[in-house]
This record gives sequence, C-alpha cells and structure tokens, in this order.
Amino acid sequence: MARNTQVDADRNAPPVTRILAEYIVNHPSQGWSAEVEHEAHRTFMNWLGCAIGASQHEAGQAALAAVQVLEPSAQATVLGRKEKVDIAGAALINGITSHTFDFDDTHLKTIIHPAGPVCSALLALAEHTGASGRQLIDALIIGIDVSCRVGNMIYPDHYDRGWHITGTTGGLGAAAACARLLGLGVEQTVMALGIAASQPVGLREQFGTMTKPFHPGAAAQAGLMAALLAKEGFTSSSRAIEAPRGFAQVVSTKYDWNEITDELGERFEISFNSYKPFACGIVIHPSIDACVQLRQKGVTPENLVRIDLKVHALVLELTGKKTPTDGLQGKFSVYHGCAAGLIFGQASEQEYADDIVTRPDVVAVRDKVVATVDSAISEASVDAVATLKDGSSVHVHVEHAIGSLQRPMTDQDLENKFRGMSDAILGAGQTGQLIAECWKLADIANVQRITELSRK
Amino acid sequence: MARNTQVDADRNAPPVTRILAEYIVNHPSQGWSAEVEHEAHRTFMNWLGCAIGASQHEAGQAALAAVQVLEPSAQATVLGRKEKVDIAGAALINGITSHTFDFDDTHLKTIIHPAGPVCSALLALAEHTGASGRQLIDALIIGIDVSCRVGNMIYPDHYDRGWHITGTTGGLGAAAACARLLGLGVEQTVMALGIAASQPVGLREQFGTMTKPFHPGAAAQAGLMAALLAKEGFTSSSRAIEAPRGFAQVVSTKYDWNEITDELGERFEISFNSYKPFACGIVIHPSIDACVQLRQKGVTPENLVRIDLKVHALVLELTGKKTPTDGLQGKFSVYHGCAAGLIFGQASEQEYADDIVTRPDVVAVRDKVVATVDSAISEASVDAVATLKDGSSVHVHVEHAIGSLQRPMTDQDLENKFRGMSDAILGAGQTGQLIAECWKLADIANVQRITELSRK
Repeated sequence: MARNTQVDADRNAPPVTRILAEYIVNHPSQGWSAEVEHEAHRTFMNWLGCAIGASQHEAGQAALAAVQVLEPSAQATVLGRKEKVDIAGAALINGITSHTFDFDDTHLKTIIHPAGPVCSALLALAEHTGASGRQLIDALIIGIDVSCRVGNMIYPDHYDRGWHITGTTGGLGAAAACARLLGLGVEQTVMALGIAASQPVGLREQFGTMTKPFHPGAAAQAGLMAALLAKEGFTSSSRAIEAPRGFAQVVSTKYDWNEITDELGERFEISFNSYKPFACGIVIHPSIDACVQLRQKGVTPENLVRIDLKVHALVLELTGKKTPTDGLQGKFSVYHGCAAGLIFGQASEQEYADDIVTRPDVVAVRDKVVATVDSAISEASVDAVATLKDGSSVHVHVEHAIGSLQRPMTDQDLENKFRGMSDAILGAGQTGQLIAECWKLADIANVQRITELSRK
Repeated sequence: MARNTQVDADRNAPPVTRILAEYIVNHPSQGWSAEVEHEAHRTFMNWLGCAIGASQHEAGQAALAAVQVLEPSAQATVLGRKEKVDIAGAALINGITSHTFDFDDTHLKTIIHPAGPVCSALLALAEHTGASGRQLIDALIIGIDVSCRVGNMIYPDHYDRGWHITGTTGGLGAAAACARLLGLGVEQTVMALGIAASQPVGLREQFGTMTKPFHPGAAAQAGLMAALLAKEGFTSSSRAIEAPRGFAQVVSTKYDWNEITDELGERFEISFNSYKPFACGIVIHPSIDACVQLRQKGVTPENLVRIDLKVHALVLELTGKKTPTDGLQGKFSVYHGCAAGLIFGQASEQEYADDIVTRPDVVAVRDKVVATVDSAISEASVDAVATLKDGSSVHVHVEHAIGSLQRPMTDQDLENKFRGMSDAILGAGQTGQLIAECWKLADIANVQRITELSRK
C-alpha cells in the first residue's frame, strides 16, 4: 500500500460502469434501425473472412499449438481449420487470426478494430451455448457500442501514450457482449465490466510482431472469462471504469464521460465502422487507392518515370519504410503499397507475400515513388502525380479512400473480399454457402450453422 | 494509427528486455547464497499455505466454477481441493486463492506480493512437466527477481497512478519463471517477456473486491501462456519493456533502467521478501503488533479505557474504516486490527471472520481506539499508549513490526502460520508431511510430491 498522489483525479464522475451495464442488459433486442442491423452483418462477415483467411498463418498456428498444450476440450471451432478447442482458446486464436492480416474493420473515430475482441469472444460462446443468430447480433451491436464508446472517452490521449486501443477497450466490449449473450443481470454485468477493466491488453510497441494481433485475441479471452466469472458470483469494483483509480483515469489523461452517455441506445458506434479494401494500415489507403486509379488511367510499370505523392505527416511516420524485405515490413511501407496498387490494382494479403515484396519489378516501381509531407493534405487524403516516359503526367486526387465512411465498400465488395480470403481455405462452394448464411445471420436458429461452415 | 506525441520519451534506454532474458536463461542453477536459497523455500511455503488456506473461499470457488465451464483437462492441482484443471486454470485459481486473505508475501521496496503470480504459474507448469524441486527453486528465484526488479524500475509512480503493481509486474515474473523452467533460449525468452509486457493486470480501484486477488491469478496465467506461446514461435517486440511505447514508459512516468541492471545476478530481490503475521494490509501491522504487545503487558478489554495511536498518514488513508460491517471491510480498519490484537493476540484470517468483526466485545474495543496522524512516525512504526481504568497508562513503541525485514518471522513462525491455514483443510497429519517436504523442496526429484500432498 502506498501514497495517494492523484491530486488531479476526477472524483465526481458519473456512474458510467453501471450506466453501461443497464444498457447492456435492458436495451431491447433489435432496438435500432435497419441500417444498424445490416452493418452488424457486414461487420460479422468481414471479421469472419479475416479470421478464416489467416487461419493457416504461423501466428495462428503458434497460438493453437500453445493452447493445445492445455489439452483443451472441443467446445468451439478454430475458424478455417479442423481443430476445436475450449471457448477461451477459440476466443484467443480467432481473435489473433482476425487481426493477423491487418485487414479487419476500423472504427475510424478511434482506430479501434472492434470486431476482433467482440466477435471472437461471442461466436465461441454462442457456438458452445447454441445461441441464435438474433442473440448474437444483439450482443455484437451492444458489445461494439461499449468498446467504441469507451474508446471515444479516452481517445486520442490513451493511444498517444502508447496503448493499442483495440486491445485495451476490447476486453470491455467482449465482456459486454458475453454478458448480454449469457443473460446476466445488471449487477453481474457491472461485475463483468469491472473484471475486464483490470485487464487492458496491448502496447503499440508490438506493431509489426505477432503480439499485435495477439491483443484482440487476449482481449476476447479476458472479456469472455470476465463474463463467466461474474456469472459465477465473482466481484469487482462497481465503479471500475470511472473511479479515480479505475480504468479510464489510469490508462488515459483524457476521459470524457459524455462519450459514454450521449445518445446511449440511440446512436450506435457500429454505424461508424469501416472495412479495409487493402491489407495494411488505414493510413496508406488513400495512397494505394490513388495508385489503383492511376493504373485505371493507363499508368503502367513500363511507362512510369515516377510517382509524386503529397501525404499527411502520419503516412511517413507510420509507414515510411523505403526498403521492406518481407511481407510484414511491406505493410509499413507506403512505397510497397503504391507499387502493389499500380501493378496489381489491389493490395490484398497476396500482395503482401514475402516473394511479392521482394520481386524485382515490384521493387522497381516502389523505388519510383516519392512521398512528401504536405500540411494541406488531411489524414484521409492524398494527391498523386505520375510522370510518364513520354513527358506527360497523370493526376489523381483522393479526398476519401475506398473503404472510408464516405466511400464505403459495397456488400458485393465485402463478398469479393471474403471470397479472396476463404475460397482457398474452405473451397468456393462452402464459402458461397457461408456468405449466404452470414447475410441472414439474424434469422439463424443456432449459430452452430455458421461455425460448421467455417470449419475446414 | 495516429499521432506521436511522446515528445518526452526515452528513446535511448538500454536493452533491458534482452538483458533480463540472458540472465533468465544463463544464470547458473543455485548461483546464489545459502540465505537466498533458504528464502526461496520460505517464500514457497508461505505462498502454498495461503493458497491452501483460502481454497474454500467463495472467490476461489467462483473462479473454479468459471474455469470448469471450459471443461478443462486434469493437468494440475487446485491447491487445497480435490479438483484438477488445466495448467492455465490452475495458475489462475491458485494465484487468486494465494492472495485472497491478503496474507501472502511482500517485497517491501515495492509492496509487490511476488509469489502469487510466479509460484502459481510455476507450480502448475512444473506439476504438468514433472519438473524437479531444483528446477522449480531456480525458476522461482529468477522469476521473483524479474518481477521485483521491474517493480523497482517503476515504483512508486506506477503505483501512485493507480496500478496494482503485483499484477502488472507479475506477468513478467511468471513469464520469466516459466521460460526458465521450460528451458527456452534467449530469443524465445525475449519473446515471452514481450508477450507478457502487453498484459499489465490490475487496478487499485479493485481493492476490497475479489478482483484484487484476481490480479496475481490473471498475471500468473498470462505469464505462463506467454512462455508457452514463445516456445511455439510466437513473436513480440524485443524491446517490449524499454521502448518508448513499451511497458515501462506506457505504465509509468518513472523508469529507472538501473534498477534492472544493477548487481543483476549478484543481488536477489527475494532477499527483501517478507511474510505477513497478520491477514491484512502491511500498513496496519505496526498497530496490531503494538496491541499484541499491550496485551502481553497486561492490558485487557476489561481494564481498558482507550488506546491512543500515533500513526503514519497512510494508515488512515488506506485503513481508516471506523465501523467495518464484515470481514473484508475489517481488513481496511486499523481499529478492528487493534481490537483483534488486544483481544486475541493475533490477527489471522479467523479474526477477520464476519462474525468476529461484528461481535459486540470486539466492536467495544475497536471503539476505544483513537488513531492520530503524526508526521514524526514512519510508515514502518507506531506509537501506542493504553489508558487504563485505574488511571495508569501502558506505552509501546514499535519501530519495525513483526514480519518486517528487521524483525522477520522465524521458520517456526512460518510453520505455525502454515498450520493455521492448512490443518483445517488437509488435516494435521498431511499438513505436517507437506511442511517437511517444503523445507527440502530443492532436493525433491518431482514436484508432484508437493502437489499430491496439497490435494484435499
């Protein structure tokens, strides 16, 4: 025990832990617009495709091998594989694989990837309990609302400090979703949030390693177990989020309680979710989009002299790697992303394979990309000029990249993205069935229909 | 992805993650003094007794019930019970029970309770692998050295901010211990520390709830899984502790790298471990000790008018509860602690039973205790004057309480404490056998000898 130096603490915060618990428990099923309901299906499908797509990746393999040391019972599906493990292990592994390709969803206000923690916990639990699609969709929307509202409360200070906000808020979202699915009462749900609040997972220092996707997986597991513990009578502080020594004031210097309470139950943060067309950090997307558009306008590797990009400062800060030597490094290289866009017209996981990143023709285009920071360019935008060998130039300005809220991926885009990840794993036929079931998820009597189709 | 505002970050920290990994892997078995070796046995026995003692408590029961939802395999013993669960579940549950009574060990420089995370992970793993007592003791000393050195690095700022330092540093200690026991190489051990670094568990807001003891349990589980993941090839940042967005700089404003490196492998932090004679926060111990001494000097509930205590400010800040209504609240009441000391001559878990805390004669003594903050009194001390009905007074000054480094509990004291917790659970005969095995732990060929004797 020791001194109390939190002289600047806010000791009069509203009881947001309890407010959230009442919302989680009492908000009516399907108590939102048709648009929100549809977005939940898009979020679920995008998450599922990402998890299946990365199911054979070495990060998922290593996690599965570690979980198998526990000799787990076969309760829940490891997506895209034959194995089943216990629900805690499935939450962990599916959370890891869903974020492995950096291809999952993004709540743009906070850059949280909300589905990873919430859906990974939820589907494992729902498969085990035999829950309905309706129950799952309800819990998904509410769980994502909780993690993103918590994110709104502490962003950006929390992220700036070095926390990976997807993992730190994800445990609360997963706990909320699982509490809803389990039908916990308000008191138990307060406790579940409290237990989860003690486990913020994720440091930005891990970016570029397997521990980055570990964060949503560990958050999924922590949130799931928090709900199970609360159901069994485990106790926690009922002010774990807002107290002076609670979650928000410990992990952030900013904590805006209104972000929890404003329009709670009326505005749903899943409405602000977006899906990546490119398998890399969102900050490069405008640049890749611009190069895809240059390609459509006739620019080719053969006729290209150079591409001049005007970018936001963050692009070079986060993805300024000039000479990436493997796929993972390629994800942190705006130069490689542009080369992929120009050569292939896309930047899916395939274009981040090690042998693509080092292929001489790709390297040759990458070396022709010159990126300059321009303070007039916003984070969402890019300005690109390609100079061609005949002396002419082609100009593309991207105000908002494909995949942004202003230019969302269509349902068909999402299906194509899903197929790009799942066809090679589950086969085209099973993938087609799975896509069809995903669109009607809310009407499925037992989500085991989804998990069965997600097994290899 | 977002901005970088860590303008004050230390970007030139020494590679302490790697330095620790090399130490964990390469420090020779038994490469320390006989005193350190003996302290490890004391630490282990004290931890084991605490876990057995609280094995029937509702916190452990609830955690066991939640783990059983996973239908775990029977790999490792839930101490003091019949059940076995998988090693991750055993690490969690035994970590919880070992801290439930607030009766475990304390590294006084940081107020870390080091055994909970380290021993709980280690014994579960060692039972499963059939490790020797020698391997366990080596890993225990090194694991505790790692968590306490990390604690020294960030204490007190980290604790002041609101983190429960036992849980936040415990994952690193448990990962270190398990990496050592598994025989991981330096690179894998770097990764294990990195994975654990992303999972700091524990908010001080949870004090007084079951989530407080959950913290060492969750840290044990996280550290154990971090080592298993690293063994399977999972990767993390190799600078996860020291990088600008790594553990130390994210969870604390103070980070003194020298605390990691100074006399590494020569000075062992387990030397500064202490064991509680009283089942409550260390800050009340001088006061209880004083009242035990008043009792020895003839002060009784019958002849007492009042007890005037001069205490350090923290005593009232942390344990100033005047009218506790149950056992848990009693632990945060210096008044109840004093009443227990005067009436019973001790303050074990029994004196924190709900019906003792509310017993009229106990309440009557409690109400006669007047505690006043005195800036001349250190955190380790207390000054007590009992005024008696005959007008006389009895004075006791405690410079260092029993259980402190200056007045450590003897081996016999520790045995008596162990018996007080284990006799009622395992029976006096089995408890005696277990105590005997604990003292010769380093020579036991297979630690399953210990876990078998720890089962009900």
